[in-house]
Amino acid sequence: MSLLSSITGPRDLDALTVPQLQQLAREVRDFLVENVARTGGHLGPNLGVVELTIAMHRVFDSPLDPFVFDTGHQSYVHKLLTGRQDFSQLRSRGGLAGYPQRGESEHDVVESSHASSSLSWADGISRALMRTGRRDRHVVAVVGDGSLTGGMTWEALNNISDDNDRNLVIVVNDNGRSYAPTIGGMARYLNRVRTTEGYESLRRGSDSLFRRFGPAGRALYRGVRGGTHGFLSRFVNNEALYSNLDIKYLGPVDGHDLPTLIETLKIAKSYGRPVIVHAITEKGRGYEPARNDEADQFHAVGKIDPATGQPLSGADAVAWTDVFAEELARAGGEREDIVAITAAMLRPTGLQPFAQLYPDRVFDVGIAEQHAVASAAGLAFGGLHPVVAIYATFMNRAFDQVMMDVALHKAGVTFVLDRAGVTGPDGPSHHGVWDLAMLQLVPGIRIAAPRDAARLREEFAEAIAVEDAPTVVRFPKGTVSADVPALERLADGVDVLARGDEEDVLIVAIGPMVHTALAVAERLEAQGIGATVVDPRWVVPVQPSVVALAARHRLVITLEDGIRVGGIGTRVRQVLREAGVDTAVDELGVPDAFLDHATREQILEDAGLTPAKIAQDVVSQVLGTRIPVARPSSDTGTVWSVPGESQPR
Amino acid sequence: MSLLSSITGPRDLDALTVPQLQQLAREVRDFLVENVARTGGHLGPNLGVVELTIAMHRVFDSPLDPFVFDTGHQSYVHKLLTGRQDFSQLRSRGGLAGYPQRGESEHDVVESSHASSSLSWADGISRALMRTGRRDRHVVAVVGDGSLTGGMTWEALNNISDDNDRNLVIVVNDNGRSYAPTIGGMARYLNRVRTTEGYESLRRGSDSLFRRFGPAGRALYRGVRGGTHGFLSRFVNNEALYSNLDIKYLGPVDGHDLPTLIETLKIAKSYGRPVIVHAITEKGRGYEPARNDEADQFHAVGKIDPATGQPLSGADAVAWTDVFAEELARAGGEREDIVAITAAMLRPTGLQPFAQLYPDRVFDVGIAEQHAVASAAGLAFGGLHPVVAIYATFMNRAFDQVMMDVALHKAGVTFVLDRAGVTGPDGPSHHGVWDLAMLQLVPGIRIAAPRDAARLREEFAEAIAVEDAPTVVRFPKGTVSADVPALERLADGVDVLARGDEEDVLIVAIGPMVHTALAVAERLEAQGIGATVVDPRWVVPVQPSVVALAARHRLVITLEDGIRVGGIGTRVRQVLREAGVDTAVDELGVPDAFLDHATREQILEDAGLTPAKIAQDVVSQVLGTRIPVARPSSDTGTVWSVPGESQPR
Repeated sequence: MSLLSSITGPRDLDALTVPQLQQLAREVRDFLVENVARTGGHLGPNLGVVELTIAMHRVFDSPLDPFVFDTGHQSYVHKLLTGRQDFSQLRSRGGLAGYPQRGESEHDVVESSHASSSLSWADGISRALMRTGRRDRHVVAVVGDGSLTGGMTWEALNNISDDNDRNLVIVVNDNGRSYAPTIGGMARYLNRVRTTEGYESLRRGSDSLFRRFGPAGRALYRGVRGGTHGFLSRFVNNEALYSNLDIKYLGPVDGHDLPTLIETLKIAKSYGRPVIVHAITEKGRGYEPARNDEADQFHAVGKIDPATGQPLSGADAVAWTDVFAEELARAGGEREDIVAITAAMLRPTGLQPFAQLYPDRVFDVGIAEQHAVASAAGLAFGGLHPVVAIYATFMNRAFDQVMMDVALHKAGVTFVLDRAGVTGPDGPSHHGVWDLAMLQLVPGIRIAAPRDAARLREEFAEAIAVEDAPTVVRFPKGTVSADVPALERLADGVDVLARGDEEDVLIVAIGPMVHTALAVAERLEAQGIGATVVDPRWVVPVQPSVVALAARHRLVITLEDGIRVGGIGTRVRQVLREAGVDTAVDELGVPDAFLDHATREQILEDAGLTPAKIAQDVVSQVLGTRIPVARPSSDTGTVWSVPGESQPR
Repeated sequence: MSLLSSITGPRDLDALTVPQLQQLAREVRDFLVENVARTGGHLGPNLGVVELTIAMHRVFDSPLDPFVFDTGHQSYVHKLLTGRQDFSQLRSRGGLAGYPQRGESEHDVVESSHASSSLSWADGISRALMRTGRRDRHVVAVVGDGSLTGGMTWEALNNISDDNDRNLVIVVNDNGRSYAPTIGGMARYLNRVRTTEGYESLRRGSDSLFRRFGPAGRALYRGVRGGTHGFLSRFVNNEALYSNLDIKYLGPVDGHDLPTLIETLKIAKSYGRPVIVHAITEKGRGYEPARNDEADQFHAVGKIDPATGQPLSGADAVAWTDVFAEELARAGGEREDIVAITAAMLRPTGLQPFAQLYPDRVFDVGIAEQHAVASAAGLAFGGLHPVVAIYATFMNRAFDQVMMDVALHKAGVTFVLDRAGVTGPDGPSHHGVWDLAMLQLVPGIRIAAPRDAARLREEFAEAIAVEDAPTVVRFPKGTVSADVPALERLADGVDVLARGDEEDVLIVAIGPMVHTALAVAERLEAQGIGATVVDPRWVVPVQPSVVALAARHRLVITLEDGIRVGGIGTRVRQVLREAGVDTAVDELGVPDAFLDHATREQILEDAGLTPAKIAQDVVSQVLGTRIPVARPSSDTGTVWSVPGESQPR
């Protein structure tokens, strides 16, 4: 029986010797490589925090001492030590989530995977512990150096340093990387710390250091609290990291040196006030293919061969991201004023080809979506056209900046939102289902949702041609499907994709939902209901021909892979009513709820967004009597025509 | 003729001697007190930056050197020096805006009044200047110490320090205050700088210092660039303020000492890389009533007697804020677990009475809305019930945190949004018109919009009783109007406020729009159209009796003082359709646009949200033929009844 399989909860660690804990660390690494290779997942980050997590659980007493993991994708080791060792269904429905999840364990606190929030949580929890008579408990937050580039951590630290009467341990998991290497003055500072002779010699000597001073370390440390002197002067340093915030600081320590980590965390635990423990770790530690991967050290992988790290399934399929990457690089060659911005995700968002061609025209701003967007407004004011490439879910972080900095100032900034819609295995905080509803609230914004690669190319080109308003191009995760040619393009750019024998139902399909819409149309035709399918291409503002076509049909279905509450469908319906068109509108979309991890297909099926379910509903409505058939009334005096339609019907 | 009136643009400053500039500063102060006393406006902040703004315009060449004012309420002096000296209609329609506005002058760059964005703008603009061959130009950002508590400034500085090949001058206008005194470790650090003997002696001696070294100051400074030595060692300091970011730093300097400011800015200008100039200023400088005002030093005033600073109009009227303040203090006495959070606006948001009673239960987190919300989730996890009091417009900053930190974790956090709806004179970035549309996207959220003081009291009590979801209570700026009693309260809490002879039109009125709704109903009745007016009290989720009543009417009007795009009206209509109720719905609200400064009444009139205009539209619809009269069809099998209605009709 392995040591790992004997661990049913963190207190089982108490009986283990240091060599046994080191053996456990080796077993955890083997377990992670073997299991994550089978399912895919965040391999690199978890390999980097094996010793750190073991040391935390040895020194602190979760869940009485709550652990908060920033982003949470590095919580696999924590799961293994808290009674969750069945990784066979990781990130699949019914299996373990890829992030902490309260439903799985009382040891999990924060589920969201959006970065830089952990210190705010820790600030709140520690204040609450003090107020509710739990003065002996500790909050332990684990935050990466990458997350420190996010402004929320600054806001939190500014507050944490203001109230010293509480137990709060901030473990900085410093691996020098966000997804890519961490940027900015902060990263340079950390890098200096990492490479000073002091840290190097400390690292080399630390194993023996604490063995020598052994349990006396803490006693010795007590003398330090009044002031900093002796050999610990480089170890307890009030000036380092956030000197202007006056936060107590321990480190740097080797994040893979278990005895040193345990002793350092014990010191932090006895400190009686907020303290930073600065641990230097290595992403992908102990797994050769990860260490050799310069790009992202196996940050997140699909199914791989554990021996080589090579992907098992063919990676030949073209992803949406690849198409955008190609178009951006092309646009960069045609226009000098195009610059690109990423929030610490250069490769995942497709900026790498552009960056290779035009390295001085791409800005990685760190995990800092607010700054990404507001600085883009500045770039636009200065005469450039910024392309901000970001995952749809993270756009929520910069709503105010899109509104106040970009739109209010009529700045020509193009937002390219990858991973829009239902993404699947990453769970509730990674779905890109809010972007349409949120961004359509921004005055003057224009939003495109390409249905295929050809449309992504042309809509991106149209977006960067707009110089007086924010533009958005949003597309899903994964492989781009086959092109869906239009029967006809109307003068306002709306594509007609299918026409039925009768004009009964108009389906307005957003982006990749055209495939569902076409399948619905086929089913309706089979039942004698004529269906027209259009892709408006630009979904905001609502195009005139959508209004004109709606006026001729008995029912309009809008179909989006964003939430239906406040979604594009509500806007279509509102514009129809303004125009005096009272055709009934059914707004179909993702439900107003947080969606657990599962496949995209499972989630869409649960939401009733399958061709069979939609067709069934439409049939019952159209064949029933309750849908009023309304046409524009004569009193409006408006004759709605479809602009540029070649075959007036 | 005064000196001030001879200034038609910043270059007119070039000919003035230092004593003349000092005379100009006195004239500007007199002008500000005299004029702002008449119109109201941001008096204290502008009195604090008189010398700073003069020095900036003397040393730099706006608009070729773009000036970015953080928050922008301190731009009055800038306006006076850039050809805008008619303050008679300040903040009124047709008059000067209270913030920078591009339409007024080419000297204005950033219009938004949301704090902490200036350094992001400056980062973007300076990068653009470098890329477009304007290497000789400088960007000058003016940021208050309060704004430095906002995370965006950290994100920006982290980036600014990463790219040194550009001209970027960051003027920290350090008056030790946000609205209230600035909080956190950052503020403590600045306070230490301000009170060190070094700064005190520098301040006392600085006037003669630069006179002594005169134009040689810069020559002397050149020797400094390689390293720091001599008397400037305390003046050019790489370690101070943001040592971990390695940003060059000049200061602190006395922000009211014109010759020193000019010389310091000249040094900064010649620096050739990003540099912070740290100026110590005094809010309300030179105006005795402001200096004696401990609360906020006349941050923003209404019309006042310039001699005494006393408000001219009676301040006896009870404001919405006062009602909330009283209820919060009461709740604090009843429940130990209630804690309150403000983002640097303790008094304006009504937390002062609570803070006086329970000083250890109120947290001022700085201008840090993201942290305010995420730390509230932590407080809730720890067993407390946080009340986050915030202006509606600033809520946009924390959309992601409401979604991911509060709602996803089912945290019982109550958001109290003041200044919701159309606020008036502060212009486009201060209207609270996005809160309803934005927050209704959050799964599980519950939103109340009280119509009067009595409802604010009861809805706040209902909100803090919810422990498993975010709750929102939002109310307008200004004086609370008379209570509007209900004819009847239905079982789900919906208040019926008016009943007509016939059930023709149902008006669903949100919050303060009930007054408009009742006036509309009267006009309709006069024309023989029966109108029912309801206040749903809780507008999200949509209450069952709204659905039931809608089914019995021929037309539903929803009336909100938020944007109609994606607004509450769209949700009402969506819920009706789900329920099989096809009564036509007109969603009335604020247009999808940025609203310029004007009175609330002017803006609502322009938006067509007056009783006369709404009634006219309804009459034409109801008497016309185009509205289909739909009732629930028998095929749904649902009988819609109004829960608890005492008089079934």
